[in-house]
Amino acid sequence: MNVISKQAIAERYKHIQDEICAGLEALDGVSVFEEEVWQRDGGGGGRTRIIQNGDVIEKGGVNFSAVHGQLPEAVKKAFNVDESDFFATGVSIVIHPNNPFVPIIHMNIRYFELNDRIRWFGGGIDLTPHYVQLEDATYFHQQLKHICDEYDPAFYPEFKALADRYFYIKHRQETRGIGGVFYDRLTPDRTTISWDGIFDFSCALGRAFVPIYRELVNRNRHKAYTEANKQWQHLRRGRYVEFNLVYDAGTKFGLETNGRVESILMSLPPQAQWAYDFKAKPGSAEEHTLSLLKQGVDWLAS
Amino acid sequence: MNVISKQAIAERYKHIQDEICAGLEALDGVSVFEEEVWQRDGGGGGRTRIIQNGDVIEKGGVNFSAVHGQLPEAVKKAFNVDESDFFATGVSIVIHPNNPFVPIIHMNIRYFELNDRIRWFGGGIDLTPHYVQLEDATYFHQQLKHICDEYDPAFYPEFKALADRYFYIKHRQETRGIGGVFYDRLTPDRTTISWDGIFDFSCALGRAFVPIYRELVNRNRHKAYTEANKQWQHLRRGRYVEFNLVYDAGTKFGLETNGRVESILMSLPPQAQWAYDFKAKPGSAEEHTLSLLKQGVDWLAS
Repeated sequence: MNVISKQAIAERYKHIQDEICAGLEALDGVSVFEEEVWQRDGGGGGRTRIIQNGDVIEKGGVNFSAVHGQLPEAVKKAFNVDESDFFATGVSIVIHPNNPFVPIIHMNIRYFELNDRIRWFGGGIDLTPHYVQLEDATYFHQQLKHICDEYDPAFYPEFKALADRYFYIKHRQETRGIGGVFYDRLTPDRTTISWDGIFDFSCALGRAFVPIYRELVNRNRHKAYTEANKQWQHLRRGRYVEFNLVYDAGTKFGLETNGRVESILMSLPPQAQWAYDFKAKPGSAEEHTLSLLKQGVDWLAS
Repeated sequence: MNVISKQAIAERYKHIQDEICAGLEALDGVSVFEEEVWQRDGGGGGRTRIIQNGDVIEKGGVNFSAVHGQLPEAVKKAFNVDESDFFATGVSIVIHPNNPFVPIIHMNIRYFELNDRIRWFGGGIDLTPHYVQLEDATYFHQQLKHICDEYDPAFYPEFKALADRYFYIKHRQETRGIGGVFYDRLTPDRTTISWDGIFDFSCALGRAFVPIYRELVNRNRHKAYTEANKQWQHLRRGRYVEFNLVYDAGTKFGLETNGRVESILMSLPPQAQWAYDFKAKPGSAEEHTLSLLKQGVDWLAS
């Protein structure tokens, strides 16, 4: 397979991490990232970067890692593979903003290899507004469709549907947010483009992260909010915790492969709330948001 | 098998719920329980009782349920059984107190039946102090040993070890708290006592809950605390969330059998915090607590 090497993929992802951190610091204007460079016992390591108490960002993390070693049995089973010699690299981001009208955003691009033979790309971007605002949702999905369409017109509809399926909190019967795109085990035989094309696609998603989020932040960062808005934000953060700890495959993979706990769980919010049987008031913005947290919404049409 | 009927077990557990709620209301002195009676789509139902914003209790739940129906495949596999016609009844409690020096407490007693043929009891009480205080830990374990010893002298050492193993946050390499007793699939062939004896043992644990917690509450409820103590409490609550959502078998069973979500997740704290890579100060009470959150501590000897 004449394909770009894992080292080269890791290097490019590292540069994307740098670019994103610089972009987010410029956007925030107050806080800067603190970096922790770590090594993994089983092989490899990473650079965890955390930004806190900013003007826009209450807590956010932009992780790069490139790890290798032996897959635990449980993960081999889950992946349905026999090979155990793995290499994985990627950039992973979660941003929890201060203002409840600014959405939580998550992005991940990753590359995975088994025994230097089996390989695939995975990743995606998805948005979790505390308050769903239709024009923002439409903007977000338009941007994602635009990036996808440059590579394969089949990507957006397929990956949008996958995001709806993936970012679903089954026990709550609600989606985590308004979805976005999600792809996994992407290989040339599943698309019209080459390995290089798929790699480029992942980089394009990574590089689109800052401009997309900047737009969404700038539309909402100065909106006034009340204590009740803030409480709702914390309740939605509670749902975010539920999704990440109960369902998220990346979190499970990290915890099961003895990944660095603080880097994996940087996705958790600075604080969250749970209120027994909270009911949104009829006709409220909270109720409107809940009514939109479902699979299969066509955000482009709204 | 000449054994007390499932209906009789459920009835007695219901009375224990009543007794515990009355005891906790008297202890709190300010708040009272609100009850929600619910039915489960697949069969059975329960009484969820929540107490909030009290003098002692910030948020607490005392659930009774008696549910039946068909076990999902995933649960049959996890239980390693072929039978699918299940009945389960139990009382389950989690109390999150206001004062960080008052411990979080959890109690559960349950009875499980499959196809009217296979049956077992399970349950336990465990304590999660935000600040481990040795004299309280010793008192707590002494009380549990005392109850256990009345039924079978093998119970306390065995069930204490099981609690250490069960209430373990593997990815943090720390126990949830100071443990207690935990037993599962308890049947007469695993002990010297009869079905009636095992049932009585479960009721004795249930009825010991209020006096034990009352003592621990009264020792600590009026202690002064700082903002830093409160923040530490919220960080420890974050760990509680991690345990319950990632590892707790009861939570998983509930979510997988389409249990009532609000009743299952009443165990989650009113709010929790996550701080990136928090380090306790050398020599602090927080560091002391962390040093004790490990398996195999003999609290009776301390």
